[in-house]
Amino acid sequence: MKHARILYQGQAVEAQVLENNAVRLPDGVTLSEQQAVWLPPAQGTVFALGLNYADHAAELAFKAPTEPLVFLKSPSTLTGHHQVSVRPANVAYMHYECELVVIIGKTARKVSREQAMDHVAGYSVCNDYAVRDYLENYYRPNLRVKNRDTLTPIGPWWVDKADVPDPSRLALRTWVNGELKQEGNTRDMVFDIPFLIEYLSSFMTLSPGDMIATGTPEGLADVVPGDEVVVEVEGVGRLVNHIVSEADYEARCAHRN
Amino acid sequence: MKHARILYQGQAVEAQVLENNAVRLPDGVTLSEQQAVWLPPAQGTVFALGLNYADHAAELAFKAPTEPLVFLKSPSTLTGHHQVSVRPANVAYMHYECELVVIIGKTARKVSREQAMDHVAGYSVCNDYAVRDYLENYYRPNLRVKNRDTLTPIGPWWVDKADVPDPSRLALRTWVNGELKQEGNTRDMVFDIPFLIEYLSSFMTLSPGDMIATGTPEGLADVVPGDEVVVEVEGVGRLVNHIVSEADYEARCAHRN
Repeated sequence: MKHARILYQGQAVEAQVLENNAVRLPDGVTLSEQQAVWLPPAQGTVFALGLNYADHAAELAFKAPTEPLVFLKSPSTLTGHHQVSVRPANVAYMHYECELVVIIGKTARKVSREQAMDHVAGYSVCNDYAVRDYLENYYRPNLRVKNRDTLTPIGPWWVDKADVPDPSRLALRTWVNGELKQEGNTRDMVFDIPFLIEYLSSFMTLSPGDMIATGTPEGLADVVPGDEVVVEVEGVGRLVNHIVSEADYEARCAHRN
Repeated sequence: MKHARILYQGQAVEAQVLENNAVRLPDGVTLSEQQAVWLPPAQGTVFALGLNYADHAAELAFKAPTEPLVFLKSPSTLTGHHQVSVRPANVAYMHYECELVVIIGKTARKVSREQAMDHVAGYSVCNDYAVRDYLENYYRPNLRVKNRDTLTPIGPWWVDKADVPDPSRLALRTWVNGELKQEGNTRDMVFDIPFLIEYLSSFMTLSPGDMIATGTPEGLADVVPGDEVVVEVEGVGRLVNHIVSEADYEARCAHRN
């Protein structure tokens, strides 16, 4: 089953995803994919992995890490399916990152690798955009690279674990304006899902609704205002996003206020 | 006025702080400081500054940064006044960090330095413990240093901005088992509060309840199980915390379950 969160009449509501990506709200109302205002599908803390595919690390001229590089996402950077992401004015390079997201279903503290999957509810998809201009900093990755408003679409929904038989064999693909730009497979993760849950839960408590964005493979390229960016994880979902300029976004915000 | 959040009959409730640090709950019940179960005083995203006092940066053999080093805290690392913090087994060095916390009161997006203080509701105190063993990593600061469960007490309360006439002239002090160990002043911040709000709000939205822990001065030392650690910001509050071993903490958790 697929689970979404939809903004409806000013409230976030949980919704079930039907055929053709229509959603059914708790009060029985049904909205088409285009009518629905999609929110990130869960509400917990978002963890994100850096350089968790060796080919991508090589692409950025980094060595693959010897322990997971994990950072946190603020609520303000998160957005949903069919929303916009802002390319800042005056930057040289902003790239997409197609990622499989693990949704935690059961509190995890000091969980072993063998038990880790019992704590997973399901999976989602994330486009973990990065503004590369700010990457070359003594401190990595800083908030200007990975925590800007709107730069982390997640969704469209999350799917039950039972519907994804082998999360370690899923194709990842990104299209920009219909052209396939990035292609990889979750089998190439440096640290796999059970390892990540064991690692994080060894010193932090993972709670239901928490999300782990598991990193991206190689194949990155710059995106600019006007681009349609689609990231897909096989058997999980296809997340659509549009890039807007900072000036256009500010004009929209001003109009809304 | 001082505002606290208290865990009472399984619910988090907002409370007013009275004389002698007693708290009055919304239903009129009054609890003494020792009776109350103190939670972090607000509920937003927690930002924390690294190396925001030049003397402390020098102490760690770092240069003071040329732009703010800001990282995020997960909910699981946060705790309240009179709670315990866990020193992990098998680490060599865990230190306290006394910090002034800014509480955001009004949504801030692209706010100028001149307008920044209009977005502040008040101030609190944080002890931003760090496990230094994990600091020497290519990626800094990683979650094992700064996001472990229980390692970020905040509180006891937040005080209204109007009650703190000059936040840039406040003494910071830490005592371990009654001995004064750390002493500094907010006038020595590298990036002051208006700058931090301008910087963060230039690319992220700050929301009411968000907290910015503004960094710590020099004077750090190792703390061990059994230690009582008190951090104080002049005119804001005095936050008490006790260090426990990982084994003792696990035994408590097992007992509770």
